[in-house]
Parts: sequence; C-alpha cells; structure tokens
Amino acid sequence: MRATVMYAAGDVRIEDVPDPRIEEPTDAVIRVVRASICGSDLWPYNDLPTSDTGRPMGHEAVGVVEDVGAEVRSIKRGDVVVMPFAFSDGTCAFCHEGLHTACVHGGFFDGYGVSAAQAEAVRIPLADGTLYPLPVGEDDALLQSLLTLSDVMGTGQHAAVTAKVAPGHRVAVVGDGAVGLCGVIAAKRLGAEQIIIMGRRADRIALAREFGATDVVSERGAEAVERVLELTGGHGANSVLECVGTTDAVLTSVEIARPGGAVGRVGVPHYDAIPAALPSFFKNVTVGGGPAPVRAYLDELLPDVLEGRIEPGRVFDRVVDLDGVPDGYRAMNDRESIKVMVKPS
Amino acid sequence: MRATVMYAAGDVRIEDVPDPRIEEPTDAVIRVVRASICGSDLWPYNDLPTSDTGRPMGHEAVGVVEDVGAEVRSIKRGDVVVMPFAFSDGTCAFCHEGLHTACVHGGFFDGYGVSAAQAEAVRIPLADGTLYPLPVGEDDALLQSLLTLSDVMGTGQHAAVTAKVAPGHRVAVVGDGAVGLCGVIAAKRLGAEQIIIMGRRADRIALAREFGATDVVSERGAEAVERVLELTGGHGANSVLECVGTTDAVLTSVEIARPGGAVGRVGVPHYDAIPAALPSFFKNVTVGGGPAPVRAYLDELLPDVLEGRIEPGRVFDRVVDLDGVPDGYRAMNDRESIKVMVKPS
Repeated sequence: MRATVMYAAGDVRIEDVPDPRIEEPTDAVIRVVRASICGSDLWPYNDLPTSDTGRPMGHEAVGVVEDVGAEVRSIKRGDVVVMPFAFSDGTCAFCHEGLHTACVHGGFFDGYGVSAAQAEAVRIPLADGTLYPLPVGEDDALLQSLLTLSDVMGTGQHAAVTAKVAPGHRVAVVGDGAVGLCGVIAAKRLGAEQIIIMGRRADRIALAREFGATDVVSERGAEAVERVLELTGGHGANSVLECVGTTDAVLTSVEIARPGGAVGRVGVPHYDAIPAALPSFFKNVTVGGGPAPVRAYLDELLPDVLEGRIEPGRVFDRVVDLDGVPDGYRAMNDRESIKVMVKPS
Repeated sequence: MRATVMYAAGDVRIEDVPDPRIEEPTDAVIRVVRASICGSDLWPYNDLPTSDTGRPMGHEAVGVVEDVGAEVRSIKRGDVVVMPFAFSDGTCAFCHEGLHTACVHGGFFDGYGVSAAQAEAVRIPLADGTLYPLPVGEDDALLQSLLTLSDVMGTGQHAAVTAKVAPGHRVAVVGDGAVGLCGVIAAKRLGAEQIIIMGRRADRIALAREFGATDVVSERGAEAVERVLELTGGHGANSVLECVGTTDAVLTSVEIARPGGAVGRVGVPHYDAIPAALPSFFKNVTVGGGPAPVRAYLDELLPDVLEGRIEPGRVFDRVVDLDGVPDGYRAMNDRESIKVMVKPS
C-alpha cells in the first residue's frame, strides 16, 4: 500500500510499504477513508532528526474495517469506525476511569513500532477497546466532522474539561490553530458565557467567532495579558485552554487565569518546566491537561455531531490525496492552511 | 506591648512596640491568647536580609476581642476568635467562592504594613470578614487544636482538597512537618484508604501513624519514587500533598502521582517553575494548590475539633512564652521541635 513516511525535518515522502495485516488476535485492519494532518505532526516536520528508516506518519482517521483477529468480539468487518489517536484495551482501570491515554496495554499511533494513519490502511491494536463504530456510511456528509473525533475535537474538549469550563464561565483560548478552534466549540457547548480567542489570523478568528468566540485578543505577551484582564473585569478568565505547547503560551495562560481558575494544557509540551510557579500558587490556579482521552469523549460528542449541533469539521480548509500530503504539511507549517484532510483513495 | 520582630536571618528579638489600636472603622484589636510559629516563618529565619526596621512576625493566633471599630457588626468585645493567616472582607466574589486568600480587599498578616501575631495583641483589618468566633472560653482545653485552624490544619486540609482526596484514594504526603501531619489528618477525614507519609524523623512518623498514615517512605529522590510506586500497585498515588515547597519536593510529587491524579501544593514555593512538565502532561496529572483559604474551611473543620474527632493540636510539642520565641525559632529550624506554641502572657 501507499503510506506517508517522514525521513527528516521537512522531508515527507509517499512510499510503497508492506500492507498492514493482523499480527495479534486482538488486531483489526482498517482501510482509511479519511485521515488528517495534526498540528503535532508539525513538531517533527520542524525537528525530526534525519534517519534512513523514516517515521510513518498519521494518527487521525476514519476507516472501514477490512479484517479482524480471532479474538476481536465487538468490531466487525465493514464497520465504519473512528480511530482515536491512542489505542487502548477498554478494560483496564484507567480505561474504566475514562483515561484511555493511560491504558496499561495501550499506546500512541506515533509510527514507532505501530502502524500510522496517513496511508491507505492501518493496523489497529486492541481493536475492541480502540475503535468506535459510527452509524453512518463511508460517504456520509458528516465524515469530515466525525474525523475530528479522532483527535482534534476530543483534544479541544479535553482542554475545556481540564480547564473546568462550566456554565457562566469566562474562558480564554490560547492559540487559534485547529485545536484552539475546537476548544472554542467545546467551551461553548459546556456553557461558557464569554470566550476570548487569542490569535491574529483573520480566517481563524472569523471561524472562531462562528464557533462562539465573543472576543478576540491579537496582542501577545504582557499586552495580551493586560487585554484579557480588561475584558474579564480585571481578574482574568475562570478557564484557560492552552492549545499551543510553548513556554510563552503556558506563561500567558497562567497570567490570564483568574484566582481559583484552571489552565487546561493540551499543546504537546515543548518546555521542561511550567513557568510562573509563584503566580499560579498565590492565585490558587490549577494546571491540568495532557493527551486527550478522545475515546472517552466519543459518547458525549458523537450525538452533537450527528445531530448537527457542532460542526468541528469546518476546521479542515484543504483536502488532498496521498500525493498531496507533503504539500499539505508545508501548507499547514506555513499557516496557509488551518488543517488538512487526506482522502487516500 | 511586647512583640516579636525579626531583623535578619537568625535574629529574632522580643521588643516593646506601640500597642495596636483601631485605625479603620472595620478593624478589631485582639489580645493574643495563643500564637504559634509557622514552618513558613523559617524561610525568613534563614534568608531575611538585614534591616534596621525589622519585620514583625506571626500570622497564627487565637485571641479575645478587646476593641472593635465603629463599623464592625458581627464581632463583639469579649469574643474568643480564630485569626486566619489572611484577612478578608467576607463579601467580595472570591470570599463568596470560598477563596478568601484572593479577597479583593484582603491581604496576609505578613508583618509588612499590618500587625503580626507573635505578640500580646494584634490589629485585625476587616474584622467581620476575617475573625471566626469560637464557642469556647479562653482557657478551654481544646485551644491548642483550635489554634491550628488559624493556618496549619486549614493548610493541610487545602493540600488534601486540591489534591482531590476522595474515599478509597491512595494518598501520599510529601513532608513530615506540621503541615504534612495535618495533611494526614485531612486525608483520613476525607476518606483516603492508604496514606503514605514521606519523611524520616521518628517522632513525626509516629505521630503521622497515630493520625492515620498507613505507610512510611523514608527514602528520597528516585528511591522514594520507586518505593511509593511499589506501595501503590505500580501506578502511584491518586492524590499527592506537597507540603514542603522545594523543587525536589514538587518533582517527587509529580513523579509519584498516578495517571489522572492530582498534586496539591501548599508549601510556599521556593522555586520559579514547576518541574517535570512532560511527565505531568503525559500522565494527565493536575497541579493545584496555593495559600489555603482557611477561613472557608472553618465551618467544616471546627465541629470535628469541638467533638474530638480530630486532634491537630498534637502537632505542638513545645510551649513558650514571648521570651522563649527566639529559641522556639531555633528549635523548629534545628528540627528539635515539630511546632511551637506561644503563650504571650
């Protein structure tokens, strides 16, 4: 089959690789109907060390089940399924608690020793626990939004949940990428009264407003903090969704949080320590978040997508086939595109 | 009156100072019946820069109201009261939310521009919002435990609450000082199933066991982390109470937290950034805490003290008069004493 492999920063290739096949009796193999490029794929696109073997890419997909192992019980050939970006057994204590990303037998579709999704097909470990069957056909008009339940919408939801968004809250979203935009959707559906999007690109800001953002802060650093404090009656936001992953973004997040408020981190950290330990302490600000257990959020988010209450698929502003994936990385990296959807065939 | 003033690290003096008096119509003045030395007083005892004016010390007390300003309504002369370590108006949004340490008109009894408590009397700003009347006489046998509601027991409670202790939880308490010991009490009363005290001093460990600790870890650093993981079925503690305030203590706290768990920080931070940002992220560990809103916890903790269900006053292992305060600092700093109570007269 054809698949996306990254060999170095900026070096993304589409190659013929062996077809994935059942290796464990709990595996499934899905044919990829839609995949996507994630903001987190841009980190290796900027800093992956050169290698001869390359790293298979992609962890977001909707597909059709083509084959299942002998021990797979609930997933069947022909099912249209969402593949969350982490696989999980669905039976351990962490899965029962809704923290599938900490599954004791689980892992991430990171291309290291596991299959990846910007390809024609993917091998899914622990298929019963991992895959989530969808009540739609593979050409459904909702597929674009359903695809976001694989990662970006669930991640926006996790930012909002760990930032403790609740009815009436003043919310700030740090970052206007696809995760931040889904964070706006999540904050609105959780009842936020005010949603401040922090970003500066016109197309993203416009979409954020359509998703429910009430205010825009385009400044950065100390000026941005001052603006948010002005907009929030002087005290800051109850909930801050940190959707970037840099020291500066976390620093801003802590500084704009209201005393007693919460920061939900979902940007993959490119920092070793959480800055501003004293301000967060003296304000009693909680810092939470991490990789989103998107599998756990599917029960809650799926009806909203199916019934049209949310349209997270609108974050996709470009569609490519597999040959278009390398340019899709470039376009997202150059901020030409918010998020790229991949139709492998 | 006589009061405690610190002029430099290690230089604690008892001096004659002007009597406190009503300065604002919302003030009260209390005669101090019991005060205490706080673990946080040891930070300036070790690093206060030399000054000619000195810093009045003490922020924990039980006293009798001697005078009230014209606008004080609920507090009356003769009331026996607890003085929380922060003053607060009791009417702002933060006070209503139970976060009195963020009161918009409030502040800390830190000796800078306000009165301090290791003295014969204290001026209390915002008396109605700050003071909490007690249903006991000034010579009651429970006074020692009631005094802890001024800070140390409320702070242990805050560590447990922000570490999200709940029935059945595995809990670890980092630090065997008076706050850590009160954290053990708090964890037990909130239903913890396992309480691991991390410390190495025999007298403190013995008291922790009497308060409800089920396990002891005396190792430090990587060995301590390994021990806690062994004791918690390999995954770590649901709730970690950070009762020290150093980088190492916070690092250990994050490392021993279970995925999805929470760290409650109450040790005054002597670090600028919260270490281990990646482990806390990938484990979805929440880091919360800050100065305890002890005023808010009084409603909940007071009945337990009055009815003898908890005895936090047992953390006091030495009683001094005002002349004994300088040696009390030395004894706590040398770890000869867990916590020192002061009887000013």
